[in-house]
Amino acid sequence: MRVDDVEAFKAAFRRLAAGVAVVTALHPDGRPAGFTATSVASLAATPPLATFNMARKASAWPAIEQTEHVLIHFLGVRNRAAAETLSLDADERFAGDHWAPGPLGLPLIADVPAWMLCRIIGRYPVEESAIVAVRIEDGRLGDDDIPLLYHERQYWRPGDRA
Amino acid sequence: MRVDDVEAFKAAFRRLAAGVAVVTALHPDGRPAGFTATSVASLAATPPLATFNMARKASAWPAIEQTEHVLIHFLGVRNRAAAETLSLDADERFAGDHWAPGPLGLPLIADVPAWMLCRIIGRYPVEESAIVAVRIEDGRLGDDDIPLLYHERQYWRPGDRA
Repeated sequence: MRVDDVEAFKAAFRRLAAGVAVVTALHPDGRPAGFTATSVASLAATPPLATFNMARKASAWPAIEQTEHVLIHFLGVRNRAAAETLSLDADERFAGDHWAPGPLGLPLIADVPAWMLCRIIGRYPVEESAIVAVRIEDGRLGDDDIPLLYHERQYWRPGDRA
Repeated sequence: MRVDDVEAFKAAFRRLAAGVAVVTALHPDGRPAGFTATSVASLAATPPLATFNMARKASAWPAIEQTEHVLIHFLGVRNRAAAETLSLDADERFAGDHWAPGPLGLPLIADVPAWMLCRIIGRYPVEESAIVAVRIEDGRLGDDDIPLLYHERQYWRPGDRA
């Protein structure tokens, strides 16, 4: 792998499996915004903090840049279709009954194992991307499920203990 | 889940599965530092950027705070013992032959599926933690392996397609 060898970078990151989350927000005009994310990570437990990363050219960035709150949903295997829908072109992501207005009117994805209402406490632009830090203010656990994984450009379920 | 309900926050994050990485660095006096991380995430592909999160009271923070370079390793199932060793008390993490000095003298974990030499380009303190942004400058792919997962406080291997 050499510096700026994009294919090698992508090959390396394909060797890291990731849990799948969906981040939603509202555009200033009230339209729903959201995307499927594999970058959601815990930052601290006390107070409860988390982070996610995104491109600043992403369709949801104008919403994330200007809003105070987002919902972060952790997806189970039963939510695979929602993960795929929230990865489509922006104008197709909220066509369907996989969501409804939730807390503060934010788009709430249906039937997820866990969701959290988060206040954005930091936006850190880096090159053409941004790191977003949030403080978790509320949330709910839904029916438990096997967590949805993303790896090698495919969705997976966990298998046996390693 | 209520605001600052730490147990509920932890219960939610247990529903997110994560790939396992090891971050290593050198203390200013040359001693090795490192830790097992489930927070490593891609930030951009061009240029290749990534992030990880850590507590600023962590034993490795003085190294991360003062150094320019780290190694990030993505672990496979065959590296489970290394993941556990790098989670022990700080003075036990480098006792053994699971590592050797690598690029720039940084601790290189043996036989991983992928590692990356990274330059730290941003440290963002948030409460008692920090987000660290890196630019990937070099790296190698090792023998391929099934990625190691962490979920519900246990190590797992991916199973079937979801």
